[in-house]
Amino acid sequence: MLDNYNLTMLTDFYEVTMANGYFQSDIRNHEAVFDMFFRRVPDDGGFAIMAGVEQLIAYMKNLKFTDEDIDYLRSKNSFSEEFLEYLRNFKFTCDVWAVPEGTPIFPHEPIVIVKGPIIQAQFVETFILLTINHQTLIATKSNRIVRAAQGRPVMEFGTRRAQGASAAIDGARASYIAGCAGTACTIADRDFHVPALGTMAHSWVQTFDTEYEAFREYTRIYPDNAVLLIDTYNVLKSGLPNAIKVFKELKPKKMGVRIDSGDIAYLTKRCRKILDENGLEECSIVISNSLDEYLIRDVIMEGAQIDSFGVGERLITSKSEPVFGGVYKLAAVERNGEMVPKMKISENVDKITNPGFKHVYRLYEKESNKAIADVITMEGETIPEQDGYEIFDPNAIWKKKTLKNFYVRSLLVQLFDKGECVYESPSLDEIRQYCKDQIETLWEETLRFENPQTYYVDLSKKLWSIKQDILHRYTDL
Amino acid sequence: MLDNYNLTMLTDFYEVTMANGYFQSDIRNHEAVFDMFFRRVPDDGGFAIMAGVEQLIAYMKNLKFTDEDIDYLRSKNSFSEEFLEYLRNFKFTCDVWAVPEGTPIFPHEPIVIVKGPIIQAQFVETFILLTINHQTLIATKSNRIVRAAQGRPVMEFGTRRAQGASAAIDGARASYIAGCAGTACTIADRDFHVPALGTMAHSWVQTFDTEYEAFREYTRIYPDNAVLLIDTYNVLKSGLPNAIKVFKELKPKKMGVRIDSGDIAYLTKRCRKILDENGLEECSIVISNSLDEYLIRDVIMEGAQIDSFGVGERLITSKSEPVFGGVYKLAAVERNGEMVPKMKISENVDKITNPGFKHVYRLYEKESNKAIADVITMEGETIPEQDGYEIFDPNAIWKKKTLKNFYVRSLLVQLFDKGECVYESPSLDEIRQYCKDQIETLWEETLRFENPQTYYVDLSKKLWSIKQDILHRYTDL
Repeated sequence: MLDNYNLTMLTDFYEVTMANGYFQSDIRNHEAVFDMFFRRVPDDGGFAIMAGVEQLIAYMKNLKFTDEDIDYLRSKNSFSEEFLEYLRNFKFTCDVWAVPEGTPIFPHEPIVIVKGPIIQAQFVETFILLTINHQTLIATKSNRIVRAAQGRPVMEFGTRRAQGASAAIDGARASYIAGCAGTACTIADRDFHVPALGTMAHSWVQTFDTEYEAFREYTRIYPDNAVLLIDTYNVLKSGLPNAIKVFKELKPKKMGVRIDSGDIAYLTKRCRKILDENGLEECSIVISNSLDEYLIRDVIMEGAQIDSFGVGERLITSKSEPVFGGVYKLAAVERNGEMVPKMKISENVDKITNPGFKHVYRLYEKESNKAIADVITMEGETIPEQDGYEIFDPNAIWKKKTLKNFYVRSLLVQLFDKGECVYESPSLDEIRQYCKDQIETLWEETLRFENPQTYYVDLSKKLWSIKQDILHRYTDL
Repeated sequence: MLDNYNLTMLTDFYEVTMANGYFQSDIRNHEAVFDMFFRRVPDDGGFAIMAGVEQLIAYMKNLKFTDEDIDYLRSKNSFSEEFLEYLRNFKFTCDVWAVPEGTPIFPHEPIVIVKGPIIQAQFVETFILLTINHQTLIATKSNRIVRAAQGRPVMEFGTRRAQGASAAIDGARASYIAGCAGTACTIADRDFHVPALGTMAHSWVQTFDTEYEAFREYTRIYPDNAVLLIDTYNVLKSGLPNAIKVFKELKPKKMGVRIDSGDIAYLTKRCRKILDENGLEECSIVISNSLDEYLIRDVIMEGAQIDSFGVGERLITSKSEPVFGGVYKLAAVERNGEMVPKMKISENVDKITNPGFKHVYRLYEKESNKAIADVITMEGETIPEQDGYEIFDPNAIWKKKTLKNFYVRSLLVQLFDKGECVYESPSLDEIRQYCKDQIETLWEETLRFENPQTYYVDLSKKLWSIKQDILHRYTDL
């Protein structure tokens, strides 16, 4: 939706301060490489799902400082006129790579790489993080919920509890990528073709003098798909009997009942039995009450009779963990015409970054098509698809594994070449299918909700050596 | 920012389905009254802070179905051509009231009331909830954090972890209303005049060959306000000594150091001591590492030496509780020219709504100007400002209190009169000041973070009687 809205100024103020700073310094025309990566999967899951790339592309295509922007920046009394003039003529000229949307991603590997003049490569930090962190968070959470439903359709119903307009719209988009069947968010259907649906609120039922009348009116108007909300008064004493009466009288083509409160397992089992006894086996049962992956898993285990789920606030805000902590770190910087690898060193080993201009590959087992490991390499390195390639745990290098019968795929695609967009996003349905296919390349152990197997993300020998060199030089200081 | 973007279609699909349903039914021209209210304060706090009204007004002013919208809706094969023609000529004609932004609000009282043709009053549900739920959530959380800081400025630094673009921008707005001193979000400054600031990232420090050089360059370029990030390598061994050296050499007008990692209490105490020993008493210390109200309270108690806080993800997502559960319920509906009160009855007493077309007043003690109670009345009722007015707990009516020496203020303002906007939002600075003043009318006991005193929200005798009547009629069924 915001594709045509210029979000150039949706940036942390320090990006502008630094841009002006670089502009005023000797290194203003130097190149730099930045990586976006993350350190932890939300909800302690085994993987995340990349999303938000299409919006990132739109942002970069639209990068432009308007006269209004320049006037505003001038009013801050912090920036030189030469710099403001530079912004007025700003042209994005970076190279950008990203992991395609719908791909399972793992901690510490680069999921976006930007290479270009340092002013530019730094400036785009905020929006890259904003869009990828948000949509990846929602896609990751949605996929957990979809998997918990074991094939039953899950609808995204969270618009009213989303954190603002873009959270609702882009969240619906991300949830669809990750396997949701549709959304309640109408504008997400209009703009992204995420199938929108919805039938009635409690207020519909209350507006009419009786529940029966409310159901009858609705079914008369929507004979092709009458899903009736049966918990306004009392599910078993009132809602269900009235719905059955109307279904028998009006015989809609498709019919369903929705329950939005009460004990899901008990009510759905009772409803299913009564519906079946009345010959309404084709009537579906939809549930929509504060659901998440754990509750869905539990009620299915309890034998709840549910045909589809509507999931609201716990999906659209990723309530149990509402932050995806992606970061954007300097990986290399130009010195005398060469790219010098840079890394952030921390007492906390987990916070040490991987230096240099890099690439990432995913290795698959030929026989099963299952993903074996990801390997981060220096740019330009390739991984030979022949028996005997050795991977090792970068934090415990005696843990080695020699691979046979595998093939290699690049995990990154190029989005921009010197500022020109060279990538066309697949359709949302293509991304969704790709996501489903890619998740099938993961082992069951990685899919587990709790305490999943850690997937290997290894370093090439060359990258590992460069990293060790820098670490030793640093600790020698 | 979205003021000029038509968000009419940012609505749950069932609003459209119901609109078409009402349109096809006998009651299509009937009026209805809906209330927005909430049941629980996030983080178990004592009050929430109303926010998001300005965006609600913009939405209602811009309500309009474009040809694109109509074409999209037609493609769903669910709506009659007459209804689509109605949408094409749609004109918003409702009356709307809301609690002004910045006001402390409490569970169960109406914070938005919409009265008008049922199709319209129903249709606006989704956006009302979306914008008020989101901004109220962030304002409420931000105010907790601001209060924890005990007068020290709190900056909103969360853009990169916000749930999408509007969450970043509108979130910065809401946090400013609630007392934050500013934001990192540049566009929120340009569009809403929330003061934006920011200085440097770790990448600035890493880009230069040495930390000293990075600090010196920055201070040379920004001599008016040099805040240096001192934790890229090692705060005490490297960052602080280099900053002090540069400050002494270049003598910037204002200076500060920012620490983004490590133990806050220990590091800030050490830094303060060393800065003071070097005659840099005026150098401020800024902290910005995964902060929230609890951590801020604790480090202040530990004697941390902090001049201001930058707070990120835990504020901009209200991480500890990322959902504000406002709901929008039918309160009355026209029958034979009269408004008939409606209520949702539930086994769960807390979920029973207040029926009818209502109003809300806040009663203040004359002497202290402290708020005593809110009273929900039927529309048209007034509360006499004379000694002897009796309030009572609607859930335990023997708990009574007779008020003396008090005055009464209406809590709601009218936003729209028959679809015409009749309210002009105050400036954001005015709202912020109003918020501060209103919070001073609350007793300390209500402000407490944990287990605060429950503020009285009572019903007028008339409203209470109407509610009892409906309840008894219902249970007599």
